[in-house]
Amino acid sequence: LSGPAKISAGIWIFGKVSDRFCTAGYREDLPFKERVRRAASIPGLKGIELQFPLGEITPEEAISVVTRHGLEIVAVGPDLAGQPKWMFGALASPDPKIRREAVELCKDAMDFAHKVNALVNIWPGQDGYDYPFQVDYVRAWDTFVESLKEIAEYKPDVKVSLEYKMTEPRIRLFAGTVGKSLLAVEEAGADNLGITIDIGHSLLAYEGLAEAAVLAAKRNKLFHLHMNDCFRRSDDDLIVGAVHLVEYLELFYWLNKTGYEGWFSFDQFPYREDPVHAVSESVKNLRFMFSVLERLDEESLQEVFKTGDATKAVAVIRKALGGES
Amino acid sequence: LSGPAKISAGIWIFGKVSDRFCTAGYREDLPFKERVRRAASIPGLKGIELQFPLGEITPEEAISVVTRHGLEIVAVGPDLAGQPKWMFGALASPDPKIRREAVELCKDAMDFAHKVNALVNIWPGQDGYDYPFQVDYVRAWDTFVESLKEIAEYKPDVKVSLEYKMTEPRIRLFAGTVGKSLLAVEEAGADNLGITIDIGHSLLAYEGLAEAAVLAAKRNKLFHLHMNDCFRRSDDDLIVGAVHLVEYLELFYWLNKTGYEGWFSFDQFPYREDPVHAVSESVKNLRFMFSVLERLDEESLQEVFKTGDATKAVAVIRKALGGES
Amino acid sequence: LSGPAKISAGIWIFGKVSDRFCTAGYREDLPFKERVRRAASIPGLKGIELQFPLGEITPEEAISVVTRHGLEIVAVGPDLAGQPKWMFGALASPDPKIRREAVELCKDAMDFAHKVNALVNIWPGQDGYDYPFQVDYVRAWDTFVESLKEIAEYKPDVKVSLEYKMTEPRIRLFAGTVGKSLLAVEEAGADNLGITIDIGHSLLAYEGLAEAAVLAAKRNKLFHLHMNDCFRRSDDDLIVGAVHLVEYLELFYWLNKTGYEGWFSFDQFPYREDPVHAVSESVKNLRFMFSVLERLDEESLQEVFKTGDATKAVAVIRKALGGES
Amino acid sequence: LSGPAKISAGIWIFGKVSDRFCTAGYREDLPFKERVRRAASIPGLKGIELQFPLGEITPEEAISVVTRHGLEIVAVGPDLAGQPKWMFGALASPDPKIRREAVELCKDAMDFAHKVNALVNIWPGQDGYDYPFQVDYVRAWDTFVESLKEIAEYKPDVKVSLEYKMTEPRIRLFAGTVGKSLLAVEEAGADNLGITIDIGHSLLAYEGLAEAAVLAAKRNKLFHLHMNDCFRRSDDDLIVGAVHLVEYLELFYWLNKTGYEGWFSFDQFPYREDPVHAVSESVKNLRFMFSVLERLDEESLQEVFKTGDATKAVAVIRKALGGES
Repeated sequence: LSGPAKISAGIWIFGKVSDRFCTAGYREDLPFKERVRRAASIPGLKGIELQFPLGEITPEEAISVVTRHGLEIVAVGPDLAGQPKWMFGALASPDPKIRREAVELCKDAMDFAHKVNALVNIWPGQDGYDYPFQVDYVRAWDTFVESLKEIAEYKPDVKVSLEYKMTEPRIRLFAGTVGKSLLAVEEAGADNLGITIDIGHSLLAYEGLAEAAVLAAKRNKLFHLHMNDCFRRSDDDLIVGAVHLVEYLELFYWLNKTGYEGWFSFDQFPYREDPVHAVSESVKNLRFMFSVLERLDEESLQEVFKTGDATKAVAVIRKALGGES
Repeated sequence: LSGPAKISAGIWIFGKVSDRFCTAGYREDLPFKERVRRAASIPGLKGIELQFPLGEITPEEAISVVTRHGLEIVAVGPDLAGQPKWMFGALASPDPKIRREAVELCKDAMDFAHKVNALVNIWPGQDGYDYPFQVDYVRAWDTFVESLKEIAEYKPDVKVSLEYKMTEPRIRLFAGTVGKSLLAVEEAGADNLGITIDIGHSLLAYEGLAEAAVLAAKRNKLFHLHMNDCFRRSDDDLIVGAVHLVEYLELFYWLNKTGYEGWFSFDQFPYREDPVHAVSESVKNLRFMFSVLERLDEESLQEVFKTGDATKAVAVIRKALGGES
Repeated sequence: LSGPAKISAGIWIFGKVSDRFCTAGYREDLPFKERVRRAASIPGLKGIELQFPLGEITPEEAISVVTRHGLEIVAVGPDLAGQPKWMFGALASPDPKIRREAVELCKDAMDFAHKVNALVNIWPGQDGYDYPFQVDYVRAWDTFVESLKEIAEYKPDVKVSLEYKMTEPRIRLFAGTVGKSLLAVEEAGADNLGITIDIGHSLLAYEGLAEAAVLAAKRNKLFHLHMNDCFRRSDDDLIVGAVHLVEYLELFYWLNKTGYEGWFSFDQFPYREDPVHAVSESVKNLRFMFSVLERLDEESLQEVFKTGDATKAVAVIRKALGGES
Repeated sequence: LSGPAKISAGIWIFGKVSDRFCTAGYREDLPFKERVRRAASIPGLKGIELQFPLGEITPEEAISVVTRHGLEIVAVGPDLAGQPKWMFGALASPDPKIRREAVELCKDAMDFAHKVNALVNIWPGQDGYDYPFQVDYVRAWDTFVESLKEIAEYKPDVKVSLEYKMTEPRIRLFAGTVGKSLLAVEEAGADNLGITIDIGHSLLAYEGLAEAAVLAAKRNKLFHLHMNDCFRRSDDDLIVGAVHLVEYLELFYWLNKTGYEGWFSFDQFPYREDPVHAVSESVKNLRFMFSVLERLDEESLQEVFKTGDATKAVAVIRKALGGES
């Protein structure tokens, strides 16, 4: 079989998913154990990402359940977006008490991550702004970077990975683009602090996926990868490769080139799809895309890189997909 | 005081608002009566829009509560987006039973609207699609138009107004733009069927607000107006005029010109703002914009319309805002 | 070989292409004859689209050159965007003289199109607006529709096809979306008036390509097709299928279903690519995509259309592309 | 009069402007001297930006003409976008000879800038990519940063300012966002290297204008400002404040707070407007906005910054514009 061995998925995929209109959710919620069981039933899936705190169960139970199902805990994501207390910010909150709570939550997540040898994936979805004149940007950015620094320094042997997103739930987020998040990482100045590229978030920002990955990889800061698909306007969290096949191929090509050794992790929101089917199709699409990658004519690509002649790149892709030369 | 007398707001503004991350909502929910009481406390607000079914109370109670607070029921919106049963469509559902349920709900809403002399505002937020190859567009469009036709013909003396939106919660909606919704209205062919322009939805579609309103008004099909503001990418449902002051002015100018006689209704989602304050600011911004409108130099504008010289239009606006000529 | 027989390309592809910065163009310009010769050298290309007026040569010469090279004149496009005189509008100009000139140019194009059995493709790129308060929308829309009507009625046996585009060169165009252009066509009320869907223009408007085509086809109004690719934000006019493979497949599927009998015409802007190579790759991608289409599991798709289960649609596409089931 | 004293404009505004359709331009071109004369006729304008090379005249003549008209040369922009030789890149070209030429052009521009005490504004519009698999991102980014470094180090007492833009003419540019350009500046590591924020470019990238300016200012890297307006999708280069009044106010507020001491320079593209009128209106709008700024209730804003309550921010803006409190 083609493709990476380290394939994982977020546990939230298997729960109830809701939106702001269908607030009760599109399906019944499932308890932790059942979510893990379903994830483990997907051929090829080796790891799972957890949210923190863990909800109804203890850390020990969580580890036990996941291990029993033959999965690995890949990443732990402190919940910095889902509680009303964070509504004006968590890591960058203007309220020192709230900010302290947020930092401590991340540290607790690091303690747990340390136990299971996972990384901590920080998505500060409430750290941003909606209205003009709502935020003191000088203070907010400084606070944001200081929080990241304090968290990273808490346990230097646990990787902390900042997941950026341009918009939603705040209209603009401080960690909004690959550029801004790498700036924050550089300012915080900790070796164990890097970034997570979420494909949909990067497409939202009109980034070139491969370029964004290379920028992070060149600085040894590409720690983690969240995969899904979308139509570039909203974070649709669709099945991987359902829309952007060619750009996914280019991303994987450059992940290979730059030696990415992290997990390939699905972050989907299957509002109307059976979660197990939605992730299974992502796994199969991932494998399919890696098999296409093996048929790419590397020599021709090197020629394109020297000359810039995109017509040849188009031919290389078509041929790898089985089309005429 | 400047501005229209017929100012209203959606009752949902005063409830709990949530998003897909903060699913429990950003504040406590409020019962119907308290929502109405708060709406009625806003100076200048004369009407309220209800969702249908009404939830915890009977139609009679609803009318009694609203009347007692000196408000008018302006519009009734059947809930075609908030229940999981609609997830693959309501008015255009491929399942005839689901579609029947949706049509009957709309008819029930018309019965209620008839009693209170309101219009029925239909926002078919689940009628659309997410993935390529998910929908039979021929069948879907035909079903959609037939449903609208059946609804409108049920009670010809109740106005039915189709609210279009490009995206969300489905990634693309059939009634997505002013053009597609006017096409659907024309195909359905009923005098009492028209459209609602929601400012944010129109901005999402990169429409010129004033142009969209004129297109509908020329066909006598601009039945209703939902107001809010956004940054053109997502349906942010912000305070009116918080961002797009100049385009709001142009919209109001053309509503006047084309004789709009409907309500000016706020459809906001104050996730992080006190609802009463958020609507109060919208009322004040609305009045402020109408006062600016009174100072527009009509003669100069007519000159611009003849010549296309936009530099003069810019001067007209600045002067109306109190700037130098 | 798979795919349609009626494949054509615009003659402008083979000329000098420039942008607003590199105003002198990215390559040497070529005379008419040489452009036709190069187009004819592309395997599979059967037709060519001309701009009108023809420039340096007479109509007779044009016909003679094209015929001699074994090509067919498919469409004639009156130049309503490339002259400064149209800068405040052509078909919707506030200046009656300018508008008259524009209408007469279209009629002249119809005379020529009649001779060669082509359709007239009208792209009114200057009919729109840039600034708020720049345009009297009531007058503009009426003038626009009247012009279309007069043109279409001039020669009822020549097809006139309105090509819509959301933006560029005016920031907003009156014929901006599939919905607005079908409304204009319906208002003008002529049997020989239909629309052209340009893929890039449709993607710009965030339309579903297949849905847009079906809407037009259901009204027997899909007269012509312009093909290229882009990243949804600007009209990049790239090689067909270079980016949006899956959505192209869905479009072609529905063109088949709804019996499209027109030309598959390339409208590219190869700023940095050799035009012959750029079009050749488009032909090959087109054929490749049609060969994939033949492997689509129709039975499974019909099942998807009934249930809405997109996970099955994703599998169908992957299998047609040669991936595992 | 309110507002900054250091107001300037690009000389290109006063020339012929064209787009990719109306290639001959929307008006007659003007010689250098006449452009300067017209710029100097605009009340309040104190400086001018030149392109480099200077075209028909010598550096000495340029200085003499500008000085004679009482203007100051504010910035010099080497032409890295307007020649076909740069089509696959200038500072990041895969061709070492082309790259050398580009670097030398920038150094020549620095020599000239040194003479007139201006900064060099580098907008590398061709350094980017269009198609997937067209570019070796590792090599390209390294080359890009090395070029910037070499240029900046050539004359440490001349400021070099990198102007970022997300898209156009390449579909994606390496210096695409405030984040990526600050990363490049940091990697190049020269004190005299900073960035230019162009309002339209920043809006294109969905950036918060004020946030972007603060990020640069905090690093002492906000060297220059290009002003215009747009509708967030394309770089429309409209009259300043014609659309985004509120966000301009917020930007200016934060420029004041962070001590911006550079020029306020207009970079417009008046396709259909008289350039002198278009810039004059920008000057007047600028002054108007600064007069509004003086009426902002600073105390209330500080309260908003502490609490996040945006309803109060909306009220502050309305009051400053003359509306009710």
